Amino acid sequence: MATQNAAKDLPGVAITADVASLTEAVQQALEAIQAAMFEVVDSEITVLRDASRHILEAGGKRIRPRLALLSFAAAGGVDMTPVIPVAAAIELMHTASVVHDDINDHGVVRRGRPSVNAIWGRTFALLTGDYLFAKVYELMAPYKDLNMILAEASVALVEGETLQAAAVKENRLSREVYYDIISRKTAALFRAPARLGAELAGGTRAHVNALAEFGYRIGLAFQIVDDILDLTGTTETIGKSAGLDLAQGKGFAAVTSPDEVTSDDPMETIKERVLKGTAVEEARVMARSLVASAIAELDVLPDSPAKDALIELANQVIDREF
Amino acid sequence: MATQNAAKDLPGVAITADVASLTEAVQQALEAIQAAMFEVVDSEITVLRDASRHILEAGGKRIRPRLALLSFAAAGGVDMTPVIPVAAAIELMHTASVVHDDINDHGVVRRGRPSVNAIWGRTFALLTGDYLFAKVYELMAPYKDLNMILAEASVALVEGETLQAAAVKENRLSREVYYDIISRKTAALFRAPARLGAELAGGTRAHVNALAEFGYRIGLAFQIVDDILDLTGTTETIGKSAGLDLAQGKGFAAVTSPDEVTSDDPMETIKERVLKGTAVEEARVMARSLVASAIAELDVLPDSPAKDALIELANQVIDREF
Repeated sequence: MATQNAAKDLPGVAITADVASLTEAVQQALEAIQAAMFEVVDSEITVLRDASRHILEAGGKRIRPRLALLSFAAAGGVDMTPVIPVAAAIELMHTASVVHDDINDHGVVRRGRPSVNAIWGRTFALLTGDYLFAKVYELMAPYKDLNMILAEASVALVEGETLQAAAVKENRLSREVYYDIISRKTAALFRAPARLGAELAGGTRAHVNALAEFGYRIGLAFQIVDDILDLTGTTETIGKSAGLDLAQGKGFAAVTSPDEVTSDDPMETIKERVLKGTAVEEARVMARSLVASAIAELDVLPDSPAKDALIELANQVIDREF
Repeated sequence: MATQNAAKDLPGVAITADVASLTEAVQQALEAIQAAMFEVVDSEITVLRDASRHILEAGGKRIRPRLALLSFAAAGGVDMTPVIPVAAAIELMHTASVVHDDINDHGVVRRGRPSVNAIWGRTFALLTGDYLFAKVYELMAPYKDLNMILAEASVALVEGETLQAAAVKENRLSREVYYDIISRKTAALFRAPARLGAELAGGTRAHVNALAEFGYRIGLAFQIVDDILDLTGTTETIGKSAGLDLAQGKGFAAVTSPDEVTSDDPMETIKERVLKGTAVEEARVMARSLVASAIAELDVLPDSPAKDALIELANQVIDREF
């Protein structure tokens, strides 16, 4: 596999015990992950290569690869090189889902740039998402046991997206359904990199499970904050078409008062109602609480710069404005 | 994994040396494959389960699973049980691509029934295709080396579909491009089951390669015949929206006279031109020649009922009327 060869060719991205070394290793590894993703989507079919690169160039927060790298280090891993193709696969899976989301939601802006859908149209956006997903499959094929972790996350991701579309369509978003949706569509793809990083480090069962649960909880918090930003932000500040997930606003409204969300009100009405009410503030409280409980999971791990960096990453999830 | 357990629970689907035994074993294995596919798509998310079952119930020709089973037997395999989850994964991948195709081509009939797209709409069709693909990934996750074979086929499949859409859009279908398209989008997913079946049987390199090449060539022939039927058949006879692949007609026209297909003529004009000309007959000749060369590949294999059945299957590819 080209990408694994690329990873093998890298100078070891090793960390030592100090913070500066960790920061530098993560930065180097993130660059290697970006390079690996670019290399793996280098299709002979021009439109697949161009559309894939377009969305990958835009960057995004790369929070899932960071989570894989830091979990690896926190579980005792030293040379981050083997995490690179796996983290690339995770980020490609997220990217595939984003490209397909923008078809279903008619999103025209993504990561501050025109969406694949907006530039290449629906057919090529659909195929680009399929292609990125096929590349995940190809990247992960050699991993066997680890493969199953990501395969399960991919099933959860699609189930969560479908549950959301079905619940919105059938007007049956409740607090419970909202959490079921975000658990599958987002938290599962935060749990996977944390678990994969820890497994690649050869971490103990207790450490692997704690990191997986940490990832899961900050994934839930991340999505809640995402939905808040979607309601309160603009396309400019959040870098993607704002208000498209507005139906999610029903989720917040439901957190406060399930009875209020069964109407056929147009989205703007829902938005106003949600913003006037206490739903957004309650959602923020919930996100903070999830992050606190995520951090508490890390108690079983020995102190390390990587553990500190995970705590910082968890706090960034709730403090971010985009 | 549920499906693998199901496969393990099966009474051994064993063949002996006679034809009746082979036919019966293949039939039993095909039923087990159908059951495995149904079980694996048993999602809690109702729409995914219902839409997946809808398309799986319709059957289809199951030529790819047959190819896996017969290649396994021809390469010396006896108990077909381990082929079942792999063949199920291959058929699910094909099914996923069919569901996404019907979005891009606005196909409303598939396998003689309303398409997923027609019943559930575009969003759920897209997600159902993604779900089936994620399930392929999950099914294959434990296989490691074999996994790569299917991963590569999945990349080729998406590349072929994309190349086709791009070539049609840019009006640059030539004979060469047509063969490049069908090699990727169809033949790669015929080569994979043949190779996987042979590998699972522990076949020799020579036998595995011969069967893979056999699969590849009948895959090319299969697609050529499919495109002929699309031009000459009706929705009723072929069981899917007829004429949707008509742009493929340009491929045939190109086989005869590349210069004729660069116009902006509406599809009906192309269809008439293709049907009046020699393109369809030339395509039939090509398909027959590919099948003959596919069968010649089998010379290295010892005679067996499975080898005879593969030859019969190859001939069915060109003789079929749907």
